[in-house]
Amino acid sequence: MISRRVAYTEARTLTLESANGAASTPPPGHVTIDVAYTGICGTDLHIYHGDMDARVDPPCVIGHEMSGRVAEAAPDVAAWRTGDPVTVMPLVPCGQCPACRSGHRHICHRLVFLGIDAAGSLQSRWTVPADTLIRLPGSLRLDHAALAEPTAVAVHDVRRAALQPQDKALVVGGGPIGLLIALVARLRGSDLVLMEPDAYRRGVAETLGLTAVDPGDARTEQTIADWTDGAGADVAFEVSGAAAGVTAAVDALATRGRLVQVAIHPAPREVSLHRFFWRELTLIGARLYDRDDFETAVRLLAEGRIPAQRLISRIEPLDRATQAFEALESGAGVMKVLIDCQSDTGADAR
Amino acid sequence: MISRRVAYTEARTLTLESANGAASTPPPGHVTIDVAYTGICGTDLHIYHGDMDARVDPPCVIGHEMSGRVAEAAPDVAAWRTGDPVTVMPLVPCGQCPACRSGHRHICHRLVFLGIDAAGSLQSRWTVPADTLIRLPGSLRLDHAALAEPTAVAVHDVRRAALQPQDKALVVGGGPIGLLIALVARLRGSDLVLMEPDAYRRGVAETLGLTAVDPGDARTEQTIADWTDGAGADVAFEVSGAAAGVTAAVDALATRGRLVQVAIHPAPREVSLHRFFWRELTLIGARLYDRDDFETAVRLLAEGRIPAQRLISRIEPLDRATQAFEALESGAGVMKVLIDCQSDTGADAR
Repeated sequence: MISRRVAYTEARTLTLESANGAASTPPPGHVTIDVAYTGICGTDLHIYHGDMDARVDPPCVIGHEMSGRVAEAAPDVAAWRTGDPVTVMPLVPCGQCPACRSGHRHICHRLVFLGIDAAGSLQSRWTVPADTLIRLPGSLRLDHAALAEPTAVAVHDVRRAALQPQDKALVVGGGPIGLLIALVARLRGSDLVLMEPDAYRRGVAETLGLTAVDPGDARTEQTIADWTDGAGADVAFEVSGAAAGVTAAVDALATRGRLVQVAIHPAPREVSLHRFFWRELTLIGARLYDRDDFETAVRLLAEGRIPAQRLISRIEPLDRATQAFEALESGAGVMKVLIDCQSDTGADAR
Repeated sequence: MISRRVAYTEARTLTLESANGAASTPPPGHVTIDVAYTGICGTDLHIYHGDMDARVDPPCVIGHEMSGRVAEAAPDVAAWRTGDPVTVMPLVPCGQCPACRSGHRHICHRLVFLGIDAAGSLQSRWTVPADTLIRLPGSLRLDHAALAEPTAVAVHDVRRAALQPQDKALVVGGGPIGLLIALVARLRGSDLVLMEPDAYRRGVAETLGLTAVDPGDARTEQTIADWTDGAGADVAFEVSGAAAGVTAAVDALATRGRLVQVAIHPAPREVSLHRFFWRELTLIGARLYDRDDFETAVRLLAEGRIPAQRLISRIEPLDRATQAFEALESGAGVMKVLIDCQSDTGADAR
């Protein structure tokens, strides 16, 4: 049988590789998956740019937002049968470090993240530890299920915020994670405003029934003041990764407000610690998810409470991965892009 | 009768003023106190330097850490009698703003802080709203009671940290507030280390049975790692106000650790938001105290559980206020300095 994969080899270079041969049985404790869809996320883009060459080990297969069906389980794996629809929670904690011992395995000090620290899902067949699998309901479309991982991030972030019904929450940054946070928070009964400079992204938010404001609009500060009766927001999610986003989030908060830090800021940021002191604000770091978050995400998608279809801008075959990455990078009019890992339309044409 | 007060008139200038005349009855809802002792704190030093001239209105009487006895209560004030020993919680909230309406009156948007925004206690007689008074047990010495306000800060900070018994807590900064936080945290059953560059302050901490480390010592990082079995501290209190203190506190924290921001940082600080994300840290702003904190502080002092005597370096009369401020500013070998507001030894000599 032919298996195909997209390998990241160096900055801005993805190579489609094919192998023809008998499929090998997965090692003990592992399951091989026929990958259906893999979504591309911001971290994948960072790797594609070459920014994470110190962590990844090219040539390597990236990708970690996925769905598929079990192809084969190792003989010692009883829980899974060929054909079972699954997604993968791509975390392999060490189980030994202080974080694992204190019950926070998702922030393990030696976490192996599948798709970064080990092979990912941008391939037609992917072999992973059986305990990373999450069962999908048969009713959930596999393209929608590829959004389980980013939705789990949003569920985790909302949980870290200890969001209460009636809380007024500002989401700073309107990419896929920002939108998912807003959608999950709305399900909790919160009153949402999304702040995003890009008009296309604001437009997507508005089609989802969200209020979207432009940080570059001089009226925005007054809009937020009016929305919160001058008090400020109870919660802000910083999803932009920009210095200006941090400042906007801090400035928008009410006394005792909570800022959930979702985005990655590689460099230190100037933060008004005085404002944290003066208003008794709280900053809460939020990273990844645990199994409960992931299962909640799958349930929300299966129940149709997250409008996955509206977030998926396009689906490309494996051999068009480069074009998909370039489209995402341009940022022009795309939200979530999926790769169909069983499809390789260009293979015959090359 | 003669009343005396120390007025801040301009940067580095304190003037002793005397008035001779009949004492006026306090206005409705107010109480006049014969001030016994006033402690000098970091904010008083900032005012003395001229750094807060935009907020204070010279000439003005500063000081807010105090003890005394009721001299006279207004006729409509039933709760207080002449001679009652008291301290003052120097906060006058507006009662109307969003913070007050949400129950956080101590961080009122229009808070009047007695001793900054209105006359303070560096005077022999001080008239304040009756509801700012806190009753002192007769057993509590009035010099020790002057530490009620900074002890209330420490009680509040420890409460904001949600400190648990067995938590390992690092206190960054070993001035009076840092020491009081460490002492209050120790009463909660926490395991404490204090980080302080000044040898005198480390020495005071050690006489109180605290472990004190020098941030300039190359072995300190290993000391903290050993102390926490490589996990990092559960809680860090940032009391230094220095950029390096913030970094030291963040770096010392375990996964899910809490950083309580106590010190005032007038300028924005560079903060590793990545570390907050990566380890899911929490930063908690902590400012002032509420009435429960203040009453807890008085109780701890009255029970002798805070060794007030060890923290009071010297007591000076009103006319030596300038020398007291200068001694504190030099930082050489002084911890808490009190002014005896009934004493004016130099008056005859001038």
